[in-house]
Amino acid sequence: MELIDCRSIADNILTDLEGKFAALEERTGIWPVLAAIANADNPESMSYLKSRRKPASRFGIDLKEVTYRSDSTPSEIMGIIRESSESKEIHGIMVSYPVPSSLGNVNIGDMIPPGKDVDCITPMNQGLIMENREFVAPATALSVIEIILREGIAEGSRVAILNRSTIIGRPLAMMLLNRNFTPVVCHTRTIGIREITKSADVVVAAAGKPRLIDSSWVSDGTTVIDAGINVENGKICGDVDPVSMNERRGRLTPVPGGVGPITSGMLFRNLLKCVESAVRS
Amino acid sequence: MELIDCRSIADNILTDLEGKFAALEERTGIWPVLAAIANADNPESMSYLKSRRKPASRFGIDLKEVTYRSDSTPSEIMGIIRESSESKEIHGIMVSYPVPSSLGNVNIGDMIPPGKDVDCITPMNQGLIMENREFVAPATALSVIEIILREGIAEGSRVAILNRSTIIGRPLAMMLLNRNFTPVVCHTRTIGIREITKSADVVVAAAGKPRLIDSSWVSDGTTVIDAGINVENGKICGDVDPVSMNERRGRLTPVPGGVGPITSGMLFRNLLKCVESAVRS
Repeated sequence: MELIDCRSIADNILTDLEGKFAALEERTGIWPVLAAIANADNPESMSYLKSRRKPASRFGIDLKEVTYRSDSTPSEIMGIIRESSESKEIHGIMVSYPVPSSLGNVNIGDMIPPGKDVDCITPMNQGLIMENREFVAPATALSVIEIILREGIAEGSRVAILNRSTIIGRPLAMMLLNRNFTPVVCHTRTIGIREITKSADVVVAAAGKPRLIDSSWVSDGTTVIDAGINVENGKICGDVDPVSMNERRGRLTPVPGGVGPITSGMLFRNLLKCVESAVRS
Repeated sequence: MELIDCRSIADNILTDLEGKFAALEERTGIWPVLAAIANADNPESMSYLKSRRKPASRFGIDLKEVTYRSDSTPSEIMGIIRESSESKEIHGIMVSYPVPSSLGNVNIGDMIPPGKDVDCITPMNQGLIMENREFVAPATALSVIEIILREGIAEGSRVAILNRSTIIGRPLAMMLLNRNFTPVVCHTRTIGIREITKSADVVVAAAGKPRLIDSSWVSDGTTVIDAGINVENGKICGDVDPVSMNERRGRLTPVPGGVGPITSGMLFRNLLKCVESAVRS
């Protein structure tokens, strides 16, 4: 399979966003403030926060890092989130995962105002996607849509999604409907999954299993979007086996350097929407 | 195809609900009030309202009929909805469609509190379905789920849905995922639609075209759920051609007397949820 040049898509998006944030500043005087809430004691939580520093500084965004500790109480953590939610200085809130298990059944998405929801974790923003009234959307789902549109996939085409989470599969299915594609959402319980992927025009792999998808899963001519990020022997690999895929004609996004770099811009696209909507209201 | 006995499913649901409303009254002293807002000058709008009178009286529900006229101003209509939204006496609100075109871009779902949303038209309740935190859900989607579960369709099975609206196709797809089925959502732009329906275990027809789906659309062994309601020469017919379907083995819901009678109970199941949630909070 031929590799899709995702780096140039990512560059394109970032350059476009840079211009838009500059135009926003010129028009409104606003340099947005993004509250990044993370657990200082958890490397995964901190690495998500850190990965936003570089793009934030490129766009002139004030990344306000707010950290708690592993032994912070639920009410302390919720207090931190509430403060950012209520603050008029803050335009967007991202909460790094994982959150401490002490939070139990608390749904972080219920604590954030939809207008500051840069990661699209509120039920309101998920519902607006469902109703074809998209405001913000999850970064990975936005990235997959971007690739599909730039690849010129025909309207009506079948897109098999190997993921049913609220950050990829579910919103992506609705966003595909909003753009006249035909989504089928697969998961571990799906019966006859290869029959589905083999008859799909596009396969979106986000199953979380290193190199699960080989050439036996797809037909010639398929576009394969690998949204998997797995670490194997210290190296990052996707859900797709790129060597095996060479037995098929088609197009494939690489890992690393595929969906990932595009995703990192999308959080800021959401932030831009949050600021623009706050300015209008 | 063998006909699925939907009347007995409907009876079952209504009897069950009757017991639950009686138990609610015994526990809380509440006989729920449902505001039914309709256009007195529009027969379609009024017929939806009228169809709720009989089940309401069976369950001891106070159906508060609030009507406006075709020449009512948008602010009058919105005032009526706001009054029901704010009233502490009212537990649920249904707004009959169509609403006057003078309302323009006003989204009725944005005016109703999610806790009174018996027709599931608010983005919040659509989003909760997406997040597998179902509260209320659209009546037709609930009815289809009910049939699929009662037919004992295996988890993981493929369900092709011929509808992408927010009252059937979209929430149904998410509700199917919540129950481990594999949904594919088709529409007028879908390429190769019969190939999809022929490889599906269940086909849900809600395309709004009389007798569109004939035996060439399905394989032997398929369960076909006809959610179409069309009027042809003064008679009600579905989206499925039942005569042609006799060329296939499988199970089929009739029209009339299929999904429809089940649907009429579901609004009240939603109302029950609204009351129970109001009592808890």
